[in-house]
Amino acid sequence: MAATRSTKPAPHLDDGADEVADDSQALRLMVRVAFGTHGALGPGKVRLLELIEQHGSITAAAKAMGISYRRAWLLVEGLKQAFRDPVVATQHGGAKGGGAGLTPVGREIVERYRTIERTARSAVGAQLRGLKRALRNSG
Amino acid sequence: MAATRSTKPAPHLDDGADEVADDSQALRLMVRVAFGTHGALGPGKVRLLELIEQHGSITAAAKAMGISYRRAWLLVEGLKQAFRDPVVATQHGGAKGGGAGLTPVGREIVERYRTIERTARSAVGAQLRGLKRALRNSG
Repeated sequence: MAATRSTKPAPHLDDGADEVADDSQALRLMVRVAFGTHGALGPGKVRLLELIEQHGSITAAAKAMGISYRRAWLLVEGLKQAFRDPVVATQHGGAKGGGAGLTPVGREIVERYRTIERTARSAVGAQLRGLKRALRNSG
Repeated sequence: MAATRSTKPAPHLDDGADEVADDSQALRLMVRVAFGTHGALGPGKVRLLELIEQHGSITAAAKAMGISYRRAWLLVEGLKQAFRDPVVATQHGGAKGGGAGLTPVGREIVERYRTIERTARSAVGAQLRGLKRALRNSG
């Protein structure tokens, strides 16, 4: 029953941490864009889109994220409701085994989210350091 | 059984929305500060701290947020683990009916989080507008 969870952030969340470099106790700003009545876009959905593009399949992307195919499909479906144009394109009629990739809009969304994340992180570096000083293990 | 949920953001989340003013479909940047191995500070915990200060009691703050006393207490306990100094001060030995308020560190944390939120939002205004154009109901 011993917990084997890593205490380090997942590698895919490791980009953009320069504001508190060289510190395993790094504070990290996470951003989410809430769409009024249409849900939200956060690190999980964006990571899923990136993995769909990388692996060319929703099934493989779900596996890489450690979530079920059904959960991945629901996340993609939520994005489909929110955006005007398709975000994910599936080949072979969208069957589970078929290929998938991002549409131009899908790639635009990923890029905009990553830009928002990078911009926000670089804007708040000094304030994160202030907050860090109040933490129990601030190095 | 009719749903009576408002489609508008809760009033307490309405600050800092100038980047997409006059729009009920406003995109809103939500921020969370992840503390490496010590959890995270996001809008829920910060709102709880503000309500504890405002109402002078964890019970009243929990009620105002629509969460159980137990849930509120667990959130406060999580902050206690993360920060070096106490964040919430309870009077009368911390019994459920006793008063509570923020310590100077607690107030500092709220202020720093709100500054981080405001700074991040004002930095990403243009990018939020770009993302908004891809949404289904972008006005």
